[in-house]
Amino acid sequence: MKRIESAKNQKVKDWKKLHSKKERTKTNTYIIEGEHLVEEALKTSGIVLEVMVTEEANFPDGLDLSVSCYILSEDAFTEITETETPQTVAAVCRMSETENNPFQYEKLLLADRVQDPGNLGTIIRTADAAGIDAIVLSPGTVDPYNGKTLRSAQGSHFHLPIIKFELSELMEQLKQKNIPIYGTALQNAIPYQEVKPSQSFALLIGNEGSGVDSEMLTQTDRNLYVPIYGKAESLNVAAATAILLYHLRG
Amino acid sequence: MKRIESAKNQKVKDWKKLHSKKERTKTNTYIIEGEHLVEEALKTSGIVLEVMVTEEANFPDGLDLSVSCYILSEDAFTEITETETPQTVAAVCRMSETENNPFQYEKLLLADRVQDPGNLGTIIRTADAAGIDAIVLSPGTVDPYNGKTLRSAQGSHFHLPIIKFELSELMEQLKQKNIPIYGTALQNAIPYQEVKPSQSFALLIGNEGSGVDSEMLTQTDRNLYVPIYGKAESLNVAAATAILLYHLRG
Repeated sequence: MKRIESAKNQKVKDWKKLHSKKERTKTNTYIIEGEHLVEEALKTSGIVLEVMVTEEANFPDGLDLSVSCYILSEDAFTEITETETPQTVAAVCRMSETENNPFQYEKLLLADRVQDPGNLGTIIRTADAAGIDAIVLSPGTVDPYNGKTLRSAQGSHFHLPIIKFELSELMEQLKQKNIPIYGTALQNAIPYQEVKPSQSFALLIGNEGSGVDSEMLTQTDRNLYVPIYGKAESLNVAAATAILLYHLRG
Repeated sequence: MKRIESAKNQKVKDWKKLHSKKERTKTNTYIIEGEHLVEEALKTSGIVLEVMVTEEANFPDGLDLSVSCYILSEDAFTEITETETPQTVAAVCRMSETENNPFQYEKLLLADRVQDPGNLGTIIRTADAAGIDAIVLSPGTVDPYNGKTLRSAQGSHFHLPIIKFELSELMEQLKQKNIPIYGTALQNAIPYQEVKPSQSFALLIGNEGSGVDSEMLTQTDRNLYVPIYGKAESLNVAAATAILLYHLRG
């Protein structure tokens, strides 16, 4: 247990840097804030590397010997947090994605260039709730370890693998395993209700503005759309994903 | 057509004030930003009262004689906009809710104290897409004319009535019309899949943290939950609403 008084301490500077994607990628770690998220992370061993608390806070439940613990002054703690809501607990976590390959899973969500951090977080949370085995993100997708994504996923990052991978390559492999792949598209697509739920499937969702890459849509078995019964032009990608995942898993 | 150069012009000050709920309630108007939203609003006559553009922008399509038009200097325009993305078109709109009573509708979404502006916007957009007749908000719900809510609803505010009303009173009336009311709850509830789609229904959703008020849950016909198949504690309220609305409308 170490005490850190100064907001200019080198550790504080290092933690603060984790709010940038560059630093997260370099160190293969990310930072989370808030008691709930930290306790969720601690439930899975090997994720949390360091825990930081303010002087008034208690250390969260679930700590083991592998976790380094720090007590920070208000000044130092404020320096490392991103949210406006005052927090008292934060943690540095290890990314697990690099150890995973996506070929072993049977119920997958593939995301092609989803851009909004909040949308991606809600999608991760929904995929977790729907019992999806793994989420695979195309290289152009927003960083899942973005603070906003972590907050809207409410701990689901620790419940299922989130893997960055070339989706075209993955789809080739899934085909060989006879796993049906469903794209999402507005044209050359069928209403999702026409597809029956199944034990294994991959659902491919796309960018908020431009949808799924058109080349990728030629690699799917069927492309689905969610019918619009009112006057909206389209659905939010996280809302459409929720409807589709809960339909497909049955 | 009037030109406004100064950011200190009284009109500019009045428009800027519409970013506060108090002023919106007082004037029964609200402000929208961006070409897409303004063009959506102009498609329904009687909503847009004033349109403001920068010197480089064109007036949007769909203007009629009832709309006052203003050309603003960059300085003046920046003063009235809220988003960081540079916009060139904005408009003042009239709230329509006060003219509506919720008793005439047969497919309703009732929201009890939803707090997050982005969630409410996504819910409004999804309800529009699902062909819901009207959305009714309990008095404690976040203001639907909040900028964030307007942006995430992507124009659906102009497609269906959004009415503030005491939900308990409304539910009494719906019962007399034999419209089934489905609450959402984690306890004393059945999986949503057990309910059959129907032509008329009211779905009652609740606050992000505490759900639907427990008294209100006693007024419903059935209370539903969305099963969690993975390790997530719950679903985001907008994601759950999407799943439920698309299931109930069939």
